[in-house]
Amino acid sequence: MPDGTKQDSPTDRTRVRRMHERGAYERATIHAILDAGMLCHVGYVIDGEPYVTPTAHWRDGDYVYWHGSSASRMLRAQSAGVAVCVTVSLLDGLVLARSGFHHSMNYRSVMAFGAAELVSETGAKLHALKMFVERLVPGRWAEIREPSAQELKATTILRLRLDEASAKLRVGPPKDDEADYALPVWAGVLPLSLTAGPPLADPRLPPETPVPDALADFALSNI
Amino acid sequence: MPDGTKQDSPTDRTRVRRMHERGAYERATIHAILDAGMLCHVGYVIDGEPYVTPTAHWRDGDYVYWHGSSASRMLRAQSAGVAVCVTVSLLDGLVLARSGFHHSMNYRSVMAFGAAELVSETGAKLHALKMFVERLVPGRWAEIREPSAQELKATTILRLRLDEASAKLRVGPPKDDEADYALPVWAGVLPLSLTAGPPLADPRLPPETPVPDALADFALSNI
Repeated sequence: MPDGTKQDSPTDRTRVRRMHERGAYERATIHAILDAGMLCHVGYVIDGEPYVTPTAHWRDGDYVYWHGSSASRMLRAQSAGVAVCVTVSLLDGLVLARSGFHHSMNYRSVMAFGAAELVSETGAKLHALKMFVERLVPGRWAEIREPSAQELKATTILRLRLDEASAKLRVGPPKDDEADYALPVWAGVLPLSLTAGPPLADPRLPPETPVPDALADFALSNI
Repeated sequence: MPDGTKQDSPTDRTRVRRMHERGAYERATIHAILDAGMLCHVGYVIDGEPYVTPTAHWRDGDYVYWHGSSASRMLRAQSAGVAVCVTVSLLDGLVLARSGFHHSMNYRSVMAFGAAELVSETGAKLHALKMFVERLVPGRWAEIREPSAQELKATTILRLRLDEASAKLRVGPPKDDEADYALPVWAGVLPLSLTAGPPLADPRLPPETPVPDALADFALSNI
């Protein structure tokens, strides 16, 4: 990552205060979590009040991107270079301990802070949308109709540079109090993962239309 | 819902501005989405900056609850009756249209606004933790060790009354421009759902310990 990144020396905001062992500042970890998710939660402030909006995201280099309608109140509020917090969370399992107190969840998450940037140049917008579609289904951009000038205009694309980001995660079995290990109760982890079902063809699709290979063997780690 | 709810007559904040047809203010819809998820994103403001923290949530009546360590900076920031936005999002599928512009996601989400309340009375805290554990695995509370007084003290429980909440969702196939339906490209939905794998026993568990019935047939709609 270029100069100026603070990922390896966390700022006051990104330092994980609780459970230090769950913090991870390495860029590769942060990128991997962002890349494994498809849905981020963007936090922003309007008139002093917090808002959290879920939206699709994708990563390209040192930026995380999201987009929507140019008429969106949410995106207008985020476009003016205001502070945002982009959080991506992947739920990996339920941690079932021997005591109520130690019940928990396995997860991977990233929080990234900064000022949202508007992507306004036409070529950059087109490239960003290609990255979005390719993130959903690799190879799809070549199959579909590209955006028209009017569609590009109607699309607002925002991004956040990953200068101030941290990862937090929990893995592994429950950590029970020593005395509780003698209790006669099942304990362990129930793994969770987001999985894809069989593709559902659009009712208006001609029946002979082949399903893209990328969909046939779609695998998601989790979202 | 008791007097004072605004769910059926949305406030300025909860009115879904974009895509009105995706808005849903009915209490049953809001409750169902909150109940289907296990991981919420809590937005709050510190020194004017937005923060979005993922955490486990559960619903009990007209409240959504979350909890954590009493030493948590995040929970301390939320405990003082400050404004929060609790968002729960369930990703249901990728919407693969014939144009890049109409690519989308199927999802269900709830945004709830208000001032977080601290649950401080011991009996109420115990009940709330029971609801949490029972949400994870029905029947589990009776099997495990209940929290000690010290553990209860070390646990901060927050809740938000669902007075100002709205749901937003997208279902169904892509909506393409009429001319694009003639394009020779597969279009439809790739359904996604969070699913549980086989339970992983804690390495320190005696091998003869039976797996709870509730885990054997665990089903999650999505998170």
